[in-house]
Amino acid sequence: MSNLNPVLLQSLEQVVGEAGLIRDDERMQSYLSDWRNAYRGKAALVVRPASTDEVAAVVRLCGEAGVTLVPQGGNTGLCGGSIPDDSGCQVVLSLTRMTRIRQVDPANETITVEAGVILQHLQEAAAQVGRLFPLSLGAEGSCTIGGNLATNAGGTAVLRYGNMRDLTLGLEVVLPDGRIWDGLRGLRKDNTGYDLKHLFIGSEGTLGIITAAVLKLYPAVRSRTTAWVALPSPQAAVDLIGRMRALCGDRLTGFELMSRQSVEFVLRHVAGCNDPFTEVHPWYVLIELSDTLVDASLAEMLESGLGEALEQGEALDAVVAGSEAQVAALWKMREGISEAQNHEGPSLKHDISVPVSSIPAFIEAADRKLQEAFSGVRIVAYGHVGDGNLHYNISKPPGSDDVLFKAQAEAIMHVIYGVTRDFAGSISAEHGLGQAKREAARHYKHPLELELMRTLKQALDPAGLMNPGKLL
Amino acid sequence: MSNLNPVLLQSLEQVVGEAGLIRDDERMQSYLSDWRNAYRGKAALVVRPASTDEVAAVVRLCGEAGVTLVPQGGNTGLCGGSIPDDSGCQVVLSLTRMTRIRQVDPANETITVEAGVILQHLQEAAAQVGRLFPLSLGAEGSCTIGGNLATNAGGTAVLRYGNMRDLTLGLEVVLPDGRIWDGLRGLRKDNTGYDLKHLFIGSEGTLGIITAAVLKLYPAVRSRTTAWVALPSPQAAVDLIGRMRALCGDRLTGFELMSRQSVEFVLRHVAGCNDPFTEVHPWYVLIELSDTLVDASLAEMLESGLGEALEQGEALDAVVAGSEAQVAALWKMREGISEAQNHEGPSLKHDISVPVSSIPAFIEAADRKLQEAFSGVRIVAYGHVGDGNLHYNISKPPGSDDVLFKAQAEAIMHVIYGVTRDFAGSISAEHGLGQAKREAARHYKHPLELELMRTLKQALDPAGLMNPGKLL
Repeated sequence: MSNLNPVLLQSLEQVVGEAGLIRDDERMQSYLSDWRNAYRGKAALVVRPASTDEVAAVVRLCGEAGVTLVPQGGNTGLCGGSIPDDSGCQVVLSLTRMTRIRQVDPANETITVEAGVILQHLQEAAAQVGRLFPLSLGAEGSCTIGGNLATNAGGTAVLRYGNMRDLTLGLEVVLPDGRIWDGLRGLRKDNTGYDLKHLFIGSEGTLGIITAAVLKLYPAVRSRTTAWVALPSPQAAVDLIGRMRALCGDRLTGFELMSRQSVEFVLRHVAGCNDPFTEVHPWYVLIELSDTLVDASLAEMLESGLGEALEQGEALDAVVAGSEAQVAALWKMREGISEAQNHEGPSLKHDISVPVSSIPAFIEAADRKLQEAFSGVRIVAYGHVGDGNLHYNISKPPGSDDVLFKAQAEAIMHVIYGVTRDFAGSISAEHGLGQAKREAARHYKHPLELELMRTLKQALDPAGLMNPGKLL
Repeated sequence: MSNLNPVLLQSLEQVVGEAGLIRDDERMQSYLSDWRNAYRGKAALVVRPASTDEVAAVVRLCGEAGVTLVPQGGNTGLCGGSIPDDSGCQVVLSLTRMTRIRQVDPANETITVEAGVILQHLQEAAAQVGRLFPLSLGAEGSCTIGGNLATNAGGTAVLRYGNMRDLTLGLEVVLPDGRIWDGLRGLRKDNTGYDLKHLFIGSEGTLGIITAAVLKLYPAVRSRTTAWVALPSPQAAVDLIGRMRALCGDRLTGFELMSRQSVEFVLRHVAGCNDPFTEVHPWYVLIELSDTLVDASLAEMLESGLGEALEQGEALDAVVAGSEAQVAALWKMREGISEAQNHEGPSLKHDISVPVSSIPAFIEAADRKLQEAFSGVRIVAYGHVGDGNLHYNISKPPGSDDVLFKAQAEAIMHVIYGVTRDFAGSISAEHGLGQAKREAARHYKHPLELELMRTLKQALDPAGLMNPGKLL
């Protein structure tokens, strides 16, 4: 039951109505842990405002009472950024009732949506006017635009279209004092001072609450081809993406690297997946080309590039999908890795990035240092080559003890993050910091950068009311 | 002669050497006014550090002495942002000796350059490794990367590649206290806290001094086609860009609108320019398609799209360039407008943006209100349709008095900015605020937005040492 001041509770109920308040312990549960159940907290209350004005009023009332807020969207984050702490004193502010698509402007190639709109619904709304909203990630059926913005979401289309940050033209934000900043401008050029929107994007709810956004749309894709390619090494993947990009330019919309270990887990655990090749190879990439033209000769272009790559020894074998069913089967292999790894016991996930040119040396150094210190661990490396982003995940040695392995998690993390730092990389490429990586960020980010971040936090949220304990 | 404290002067000379100090009044002149000679100031000194450490030392020394700094690049800005005030107490910090290209990393598709590198040199360095650095603007032979970053430069390639902001992965910045923030990361994904680089980009030197940057490269363009199209109205231009974008996707790299008035001035004043059509039309667009493929069938694609547009009445006439010489001739018409207008007496320049879908209504409303209030003025409207960015410039009525016309400048500006505000537009799309639009920004930006900007300025430069009197 709620341990909030009854006067505040009554004021909040006046703002959001009974439908907007959840006080019942049982009904609160789904708001108190993330979808993987990796993080769990307590809350005084879950409040679900239905409009920007209601969000503003809730923020103002909680601020006056000194109650801290935890903004929450679809709760699909991987770092616990939307989960309250254990105190039971925080209020979870869920944006999931703010689901309006406020405007679609095909001539401006923009769409204006509220924070609670689910990514997939946005993709569908774009498709209805013959446009593409390119952000694409595993959780797209549940995650919300507000969460995508707060964490600057990435995914598989970043190679061509950029992160959520790059897809955003304008924001509406409720500030920590409850005032509403209306930055909902659908402008592609606006040089009239500091760019405020970029401060809120990726700030994980620590500077304000994003309530709506103007997002970019792109021309619909009308043709698509996919290939599955076997490679001798990560260096071959870097060479091959350079070759394909020079040849195909913006048509190259996907380039996903997978180690043999990753593919083996999929073949073992995901029903209906089959190795396209008879021989075993150390590395694979999935390449996707797409175009606005219906008849864009993509398969010919792909075959021409791969032909050269095979000649040069960059590629060992290749198959170009001949049907939509084959395309889906190849993507299923890539998308099945995370699930497949769960069947092999606990998996330690790391979402790092380095310059693309450093991927081969990063993998070599990280593999070597891990095997030296934690002999027999299985390295499940895969990711988005063009973004320099690797999901460098670790499974225990076969047959070893789960508990002993998990006890090594922090030591393994430090090996991987240490190598990441050696290559001027990032310890969180696309997942954010949340509560999971806050301490690691303190260790691996430069102190001056942390100081600048604290200066900005202090300037915009001096009372520390917005999502405390996350990110900073 | 310098009126600086002699101790400070000596300390600065110890940092930058004699070659890095300019005290002589005559030699200072070119640093005290912009290339158009629209703004002119005085300075105690011009200091030209040759490295980041030297910049840091200069900033620290001046800060300790309470002397304010005006960072300066190629001095090609249009709003006086790099020109000191009239006090003669400010120090101009010129970055023009910092011209090193620190690293080219083709596999990461990045280049790391210092602030004083001239844009054209960067374009050439990219071309040498078979890559494109897409930023392109009139001043590219003189403007520097530091200035491009400080003003978030735009230009003609924004339609496909974005502004300078979108081309930047990392920054090195000397902070107002003289510390160096090393954010020179070549990462396409990094979600480990607030995005600091976006705060400095476009801040016009008011938050710190950008000394170097990691910038994105793109595949070289290997084919290009251009068309000149006559249109009945701005609405037809909006319809046509929608049609061409849906058809050609990312191949559409240029779409420039010009009124008949703009073209007439060019035909009258720029040698070697000829109207491609025998009939007079009210509006024109220049369309450019480009591709990484050598043989990309761009002309066929353009002709196919224009054929449909002619059928639908969106286009009235069209010519596709048949040679590189014809391409150059068409671009010369577009690029000659600014110069041509100068032959018709003083011109009042306005660099506004609105949503693309609002361009027709903006032009209709602004034209009507101007003619009502200032009968006979000639409206020279042209710009980048896909960015919603119009250069909406005004020439005096034929034969009227220059001085009387110039006296109306502010009243004319308020009419245009008022209509811009009605359409949720920006009063400075790509030129920044500098000293020229600082007061106008106070009037046309929302007070809350100005307050947030002042909060950030106060947090990062509490002593107000960095380029005071600009932007804010």
